[in-house]
Amino acid sequence: MERMIPGTPSRIKRLACKCSQIRHYSAPGNGSIPPAKQKYVPTSGTYPKGFLAGSSHAGVKVSNTQHDDVALVISKQPCVAAGIFTKNIFKAAPVQASLATLIQRQHNGIRGVVVNSGCANAVTGRLGLEHADAMAKEADRCFKDPEHSSSAQDSPQTLVMSTGVIGQQLPIEKITAAIPKAHSALGSTHDHWLDAAKAICTTDTFPKLISRTFSLPSHPEIEYRIAGMTKGAGMIHPNMATLLGIVCTDVSIDPKAITSILRHSANRSFNCISIDGDTSTNDTVTLFANGAATPKGVQPLTLPEDFIQKPRMGNRKLDHYKQSPDMIAFTEVFIAFMTDLAKLVVRDGEGATKFVTIRVISDVNAQVAKRAAMSIARSALVKTALYGKDANWGRILCAVGYAPGIMGSTELPASSPGTGQVTPERTSVSFIPVDGSEVLELLVRGEPQVVDEVRAKQILEMEDLEILVRLEDGADPARLGMTEAAKTFESKVWTCDFSHDYVTINGDYRA
Amino acid sequence: MERMIPGTPSRIKRLACKCSQIRHYSAPGNGSIPPAKQKYVPTSGTYPKGFLAGSSHAGVKVSNTQHDDVALVISKQPCVAAGIFTKNIFKAAPVQASLATLIQRQHNGIRGVVVNSGCANAVTGRLGLEHADAMAKEADRCFKDPEHSSSAQDSPQTLVMSTGVIGQQLPIEKITAAIPKAHSALGSTHDHWLDAAKAICTTDTFPKLISRTFSLPSHPEIEYRIAGMTKGAGMIHPNMATLLGIVCTDVSIDPKAITSILRHSANRSFNCISIDGDTSTNDTVTLFANGAATPKGVQPLTLPEDFIQKPRMGNRKLDHYKQSPDMIAFTEVFIAFMTDLAKLVVRDGEGATKFVTIRVISDVNAQVAKRAAMSIARSALVKTALYGKDANWGRILCAVGYAPGIMGSTELPASSPGTGQVTPERTSVSFIPVDGSEVLELLVRGEPQVVDEVRAKQILEMEDLEILVRLEDGADPARLGMTEAAKTFESKVWTCDFSHDYVTINGDYRA
Repeated sequence: MERMIPGTPSRIKRLACKCSQIRHYSAPGNGSIPPAKQKYVPTSGTYPKGFLAGSSHAGVKVSNTQHDDVALVISKQPCVAAGIFTKNIFKAAPVQASLATLIQRQHNGIRGVVVNSGCANAVTGRLGLEHADAMAKEADRCFKDPEHSSSAQDSPQTLVMSTGVIGQQLPIEKITAAIPKAHSALGSTHDHWLDAAKAICTTDTFPKLISRTFSLPSHPEIEYRIAGMTKGAGMIHPNMATLLGIVCTDVSIDPKAITSILRHSANRSFNCISIDGDTSTNDTVTLFANGAATPKGVQPLTLPEDFIQKPRMGNRKLDHYKQSPDMIAFTEVFIAFMTDLAKLVVRDGEGATKFVTIRVISDVNAQVAKRAAMSIARSALVKTALYGKDANWGRILCAVGYAPGIMGSTELPASSPGTGQVTPERTSVSFIPVDGSEVLELLVRGEPQVVDEVRAKQILEMEDLEILVRLEDGADPARLGMTEAAKTFESKVWTCDFSHDYVTINGDYRA
Repeated sequence: MERMIPGTPSRIKRLACKCSQIRHYSAPGNGSIPPAKQKYVPTSGTYPKGFLAGSSHAGVKVSNTQHDDVALVISKQPCVAAGIFTKNIFKAAPVQASLATLIQRQHNGIRGVVVNSGCANAVTGRLGLEHADAMAKEADRCFKDPEHSSSAQDSPQTLVMSTGVIGQQLPIEKITAAIPKAHSALGSTHDHWLDAAKAICTTDTFPKLISRTFSLPSHPEIEYRIAGMTKGAGMIHPNMATLLGIVCTDVSIDPKAITSILRHSANRSFNCISIDGDTSTNDTVTLFANGAATPKGVQPLTLPEDFIQKPRMGNRKLDHYKQSPDMIAFTEVFIAFMTDLAKLVVRDGEGATKFVTIRVISDVNAQVAKRAAMSIARSALVKTALYGKDANWGRILCAVGYAPGIMGSTELPASSPGTGQVTPERTSVSFIPVDGSEVLELLVRGEPQVVDEVRAKQILEMEDLEILVRLEDGADPARLGMTEAAKTFESKVWTCDFSHDYVTINGDYRA
């Protein structure tokens, strides 16, 4: 990843594009992990019982002659599964295939997922759908489940994911030939999981794998495990999920509730990141729960019936889960796990040199906070300024000011009532250094502060930064105290900067 | 502006960032116009009667020691004026000041506009508003109108514009000292207008000035004139207007109708361009009409009373203007004029190497077409691919697929009814070469075509390109024939590519 030369006086020198360290464009799992990223790659892990991972080489991209680009993650026994998918209307073939499988099987009797990198199988018409189906069927064949072999008409037991170039057909023979190889390479060790995590990478510079153990209040003696992998690193502005995510746990989850549980946490993790504002055609995050660690007689995790009936319940507040202590505990564990996974995607954003947390506090509502935060995260001008370590905070305000849904009227001064939920005179911005040193206030209730540029540079030199924006409610000043205290409407979004490398990587991605 | 080296085999070489040709970041009107852009700078012009232009040097940016950065464009006699302004909620002080002046004076008795570049006077709190007022008052003083001197409490006769860095206070003494100098430099020659056009530039590489003559059917013997200047070159994703635009004409226009006339044409010109998706805090386009060429007894151009009463009438179709042949004629002239002016902004987009027309044809409605076109124009991935001359057309589809307002449902296949007005199976994409050579079809009704990459490269080597997207209505195939013929719902948007230079320019803009 590009680094700038500190202390070089000339702007041109400091910002001149240095393409010395070239990424293997869309050649997955390449071995050369940048030293600065090594710390994000685990050397061991505890993986859920009854799950296996494996990978093999298909050479989906002709330029990829050695790196594995096909992965399998499966449960030894058919399990419960959920998937959340991109809202992009051009849903890739594997997205449509996985959706259909989950619906037809009612989230039950799923064996796992087969993944290829190097080609997204998106906008590929009828043939693309046949290819996605062929991948799932080939994986199913490897399992030799009597249940499945009984009828070729059954919907597959395997979900499908593809990532890479859009608008190209898969080299399907290469892939179907590689699937049995990935199956015979299946195993439960850390290396098996890491190999699979590498195989799903495209422009990622490091594999993204996390594993964890947890217990639930009802049976504190039982240890459960959760493990997951994800990949970036471009076309990341998730809408229901990020590019690809696979999470497995050996706790038992009610198939009727699993989708809501997954969506609830994705809305608080994967749906809070943006790298370049482009919502992919292939966004998919899946959760597999095989209950291998749940003893007989222990009920699966579930949700109240009325939740399960209602759509969009996944967006409800955590409080709604309070009926079950186990559910509360699991939700907290799961959201933290998904958040850490999502942050790894930002950490490896294409060309990124910075990891930026954008925190917006609104006393109007959570949607305003989220919209403002996402608008900042999407602004090319904010992101290039961060790359240049330039405290050009006016661009942050500008991005808040044009955020969809909080626009002002053209004919009235911005501060008039009815122009939106943001009042310039009651907006504040500051930089929060991650090392705990003093906060740098840039704008206080609409009044720009005299900025210590030296201090600003110090903060911007750090890889990590938090930008805090406060949107106080001009319509009702009396509420301000309450808001300061409660801070109910806080939205956190994670993003990165916008560098020369991003342009280089995406100027000729298909090569 | 950066150019790529044609025929260089290595991707890295071709895309390596070449910052040899450095723009004068935010140093306005610098003399070094790139050879490729010289053709856009007029060497003569015909300017409207009774208008004067002038400029002077204030040194708003310390780094600007020689280029004029204050401009005055005024009418010898008080005139009718309209302005349309950014929808960004953080309206800059000059935007708020000009809005107030136009409302208080009911679009009448305006003398002109005073402009500074180098500092936007945006998000500058109370002091910023005082500075904007001081600029207007100082310009007024120069006119020495008895009308005005009679009462200091009157709202100013001069509108104000500022452009440059956001969040910094104006060096107001420098500017008020420069305004009388600009006033004494006023004149009506081509050079006077060109100097003013240069003085309002920031990262622009060339001044943007157009002048034209026209006549109206009621008095074909009378020659009217229209002239205008604009500037870019970043933070361009206009919402009601682009960064700055000043248009003057010597035809007479009804003050009650002038705002609608201006908005109507801006919605079809300036509001159809995007460079980086960031809607500025300072967007302002003004129209001044002094009637100096309209003989006594000839009625000013106006609109039917019911139009003037209704808001948003500016969005109505051209047909609604049909009550007056003069109005029809003027509207056509004016839209064409405004469009040519807006295109110059795109032509000079920060770091841009390409001028791209995005044409979307929808048989659902015009809003869908406009939203899809704007989403493509905003996509960092589409723009970097265009920069890299990579026919990665899948990204075009992707951007259509996540366009706000035309999202699909997550739980249904994208082609199901109710998922939006875009049906993948009925979407087509092609590249239209501007040299009239054969069209290159990339996607036909959801089926990707076998793309001749050599031909694609040929087309992408050209500076100008048109991308055509057809969105046919899946819900009612019977309508397709009609649509093909009528093509009522067409939206054209103009944008540029996204280059290393864009990152360089914006990585340290404030310096």
